[in-house]
Amino acid sequence: MLTFKCRENIQKQLDNVVDFWLKYSHDRVHGGFFTCIGRDGNIYDELKYVWLQGRQVWMYCRLYRTMDRFHKPEILEAAVAGGAFLRKFARVSNSSGQWKCAFCLTRDGKALKVQRTIFSECFYIMAMDELSKVTGDKDMQLEAEQMMEQLIYWVQVDPSGLGRPQLPGEVPINSLSVPMMLMCLVQQITEGRGQEVSQKYKELGIWCVQQILQHIQRAGTAILENVSVDGSELPGCQGRLQNPGHALEAGWFLMLYGAQWGDKEIQRTAIRNFVELPYQYGWDKEHGGLFYFLDVDGHCPTQLEWSMKLWWPHCEALIAFLMAYNHTRKPELLEIFSEVYQYTFSHFPDAENGEWFGYLTQEGKVALDFKGGPFKGFFHVPRCLYMCERILDDLLENKD
Amino acid sequence: MLTFKCRENIQKQLDNVVDFWLKYSHDRVHGGFFTCIGRDGNIYDELKYVWLQGRQVWMYCRLYRTMDRFHKPEILEAAVAGGAFLRKFARVSNSSGQWKCAFCLTRDGKALKVQRTIFSECFYIMAMDELSKVTGDKDMQLEAEQMMEQLIYWVQVDPSGLGRPQLPGEVPINSLSVPMMLMCLVQQITEGRGQEVSQKYKELGIWCVQQILQHIQRAGTAILENVSVDGSELPGCQGRLQNPGHALEAGWFLMLYGAQWGDKEIQRTAIRNFVELPYQYGWDKEHGGLFYFLDVDGHCPTQLEWSMKLWWPHCEALIAFLMAYNHTRKPELLEIFSEVYQYTFSHFPDAENGEWFGYLTQEGKVALDFKGGPFKGFFHVPRCLYMCERILDDLLENKD
Repeated sequence: MLTFKCRENIQKQLDNVVDFWLKYSHDRVHGGFFTCIGRDGNIYDELKYVWLQGRQVWMYCRLYRTMDRFHKPEILEAAVAGGAFLRKFARVSNSSGQWKCAFCLTRDGKALKVQRTIFSECFYIMAMDELSKVTGDKDMQLEAEQMMEQLIYWVQVDPSGLGRPQLPGEVPINSLSVPMMLMCLVQQITEGRGQEVSQKYKELGIWCVQQILQHIQRAGTAILENVSVDGSELPGCQGRLQNPGHALEAGWFLMLYGAQWGDKEIQRTAIRNFVELPYQYGWDKEHGGLFYFLDVDGHCPTQLEWSMKLWWPHCEALIAFLMAYNHTRKPELLEIFSEVYQYTFSHFPDAENGEWFGYLTQEGKVALDFKGGPFKGFFHVPRCLYMCERILDDLLENKD
Repeated sequence: MLTFKCRENIQKQLDNVVDFWLKYSHDRVHGGFFTCIGRDGNIYDELKYVWLQGRQVWMYCRLYRTMDRFHKPEILEAAVAGGAFLRKFARVSNSSGQWKCAFCLTRDGKALKVQRTIFSECFYIMAMDELSKVTGDKDMQLEAEQMMEQLIYWVQVDPSGLGRPQLPGEVPINSLSVPMMLMCLVQQITEGRGQEVSQKYKELGIWCVQQILQHIQRAGTAILENVSVDGSELPGCQGRLQNPGHALEAGWFLMLYGAQWGDKEIQRTAIRNFVELPYQYGWDKEHGGLFYFLDVDGHCPTQLEWSMKLWWPHCEALIAFLMAYNHTRKPELLEIFSEVYQYTFSHFPDAENGEWFGYLTQEGKVALDFKGGPFKGFFHVPRCLYMCERILDDLLENKD
């Protein structure tokens, strides 16, 4: 399985996906990127989703900075132009005078929606920091760090600036996405910045790990998406919710963290609880593929799309299993990678028009045929292919 | 087709559904109704959704008030207890000191979520008004009218009390649900209250009709879910969105309005544009059933559930076609009623445990197996069966 053929296929897919977005997504009139792109490359909506803009800037920069064949002026120019659009339009001020990012902009950059969460801001930071690494722009780096401070304040001190009024029935929750996102930002911001920056964010990284590990529940047999802030199970649907793709993503984030700090115990936990386990309960034994949502007690989730097969959990699974295999060389991890690879590459890529479909029915039929939409941009697919290509290179070079 | 057999089946289903909710949904500890009820009647979540509470109170009262076999103390008691729970817990004050309703409460009535829309308030009014019609409670009637004034102010004068900040990219839109909901409230509040109240709300009724008719687009060939406030088409996905079940519901609301005011032209428009037309574009010719969402230009909708078959559009279609047939006696309308009836009754009711499934795949397989959830309560199914039973009685008595 782990042949040059697989490596070659992944490389070919990455080239194809990069070409697709370079060709169709750039708005040469107003700047920024179109992200609502239909099956054959047509723009079916002109709205610009800030988090997808940020992700695209980040991905372009990362490819430009770390892979020779993408170190091309057109990719750098696209990233710089996307960053300029974001800096010009994405930030809006909230009622406390803090910087928020809009969730969605009109084609010409007017704010249309602001979410009362942190995720648009997170990808704004990712974009600014990665762009500053490519261009050396110190202002941009500073801006990323300032927005990061704001974010940490919202998460750890006072969330009221996000705009959600506190209600008497509300219990503060630890939602897996928040510490995952922060951990990802810590890795981003500290990468290549030297000891001082690493130390500055070290404690936050430890906090993120501890918050993520709280999601291991039921004596280690389940990852739950939402837990209380002291790490106990919450009642009802919210408390029983599982999102296998998200757990797998947390798995490879934790593996990276473990590698960075030389923490073998975290790596073992990551592989056992966040990689092997979500696959065990998340893989559809009947039709193949990973479920989107599950209920740990086997109730039917209330999310209408619970049984659909989405592209991104499969992307996360590919990274997670390949990375886990690279760490451990356990053949069963490679076997699961191979199973996920077979399912993914036979279902998601569109051989006719390029890029990947994003949404399949439980049975594996294409249910929504666009290539980009409000939640699917130039991010999960290229990040997965990029990560897998690099891990495969590493594995093939050190073949034992 | 239009036999006593069909009438009998509908009656049996209505009895079954009423029994199901009487048996499983009442919270005898904290009051109010559980609405998250699993396949076999189990409560899988204790949260209480205010709009579903309001709908259940309304439906109990309506059955109690207008159908002899439901004029039973246990139904009245359930409605009164549900109303008391709502009055005690549903209202929260917003930052301008106006009354809002919570969207969701904990089991013991603490507010957990407040939506920045009008729909929880709408069903609060429906419940209070209908309950006052049953009990004669003048305070409740007054409260319904006061909340109604508040609602009209938000819709027609200033929406800022709803809590959504105005953003520079936002264009005010006419979303079909708003005038539909208001029209439904006008019919509710004026029903049986005499000339004076009818006159008071007459202008609002006319406004609602005019706002609903603005959704007829593209030279009468499409009903679009969102249009601009001056009735023109909006750009992008939002502007192209179609929701056939919603259009069909608007159709029978308009027919009722036309009947009330003796307006034949509105009735013709209702049947042609809001009943026949949505069926033409909304019915799945391959697998049967009504799509949930469509894009008028044939793009793929971005809603992941677009191709699913939901129970409620089928409920609305049954009412709309039977009512349209009752008005016109055109046999083709009865044929479509029959087609929808066959699909609905062979797919949604659960013969084993009672009540209806709510969510099918495009192919008609049960995708979510609960009987009640955050969006499915004691409302669309019993309202449909209740309306159809009455229209069938009317038709069978006046058989020509």
